[in-house]
Amino acid sequence: MTPAAARERFLRARVARLATAGADGRPHLVPVVFAVAGETVYSAVDRKPKRTARLRRLANAAENPRVALLADHYDDANWDALWWVRADGIARVLPPEADEAVRAVDLLAGRYAQYRTARPEGPVLAVDVERWSGWSAA
Amino acid sequence: MTPAAARERFLRARVARLATAGADGRPHLVPVVFAVAGETVYSAVDRKPKRTARLRRLANAAENPRVALLADHYDDANWDALWWVRADGIARVLPPEADEAVRAVDLLAGRYAQYRTARPEGPVLAVDVERWSGWSAA
Repeated sequence: MTPAAARERFLRARVARLATAGADGRPHLVPVVFAVAGETVYSAVDRKPKRTARLRRLANAAENPRVALLADHYDDANWDALWWVRADGIARVLPPEADEAVRAVDLLAGRYAQYRTARPEGPVLAVDVERWSGWSAA
Repeated sequence: MTPAAARERFLRARVARLATAGADGRPHLVPVVFAVAGETVYSAVDRKPKRTARLRRLANAAENPRVALLADHYDDANWDALWWVRADGIARVLPPEADEAVRAVDLLAGRYAQYRTARPEGPVLAVDVERWSGWSAA
């Protein structure tokens, strides 16, 4: 799959999994909803900074900004339909009040109705993608 | 969610995502089908060792055996139905001919019809789980 095709497929996905690793090299994994602007993937933290300062994904990204995001499709009955796409990049943790974080949450709210009802109040993770890659069984 | 409940939910999932990180600390992510025996999660590589010696997940696990596996449920229409479960553990790469690898592929073939038609021929990744954790919106 070409990088452009991988990016296109990633954009259409509704959920991705974020992998971070702290200075100790232990990987951490969590599902995220996301929005993409240009070559940056944004995800938000629902809760306010005080409660999230110790969130592993944010602590890891601060220690080691290299992260990966994966979107995939699984179909138990038809392995010919399987695909995955991955975004490897460099993370930045944005405080909720930063202009870029506000724009990111606007994008997220445009994409997810739940974020229009309850706008996420925590930091935003911005991942500047260095490499889009993917695989498709078909 | 209790560790026992997280383990139980993980066992019922059909696909998981595997995160590894090499000595350079860069996380790598790939979807895997899996089988569990006791506290070990097994996944296989389809192709023969010669072609897979450079597979990133195996190279990373050899360099840094700390890995994570995530299974989750996403429902765009109902965020109250969301959940995820994670297995953090220590990976071992088994050559295909090892007794434990043969037993693992038997388990995988019991769980996935596709593996009964085309038995995976590559190394098996065994992850000895140190911690089951999870979260459920409900």
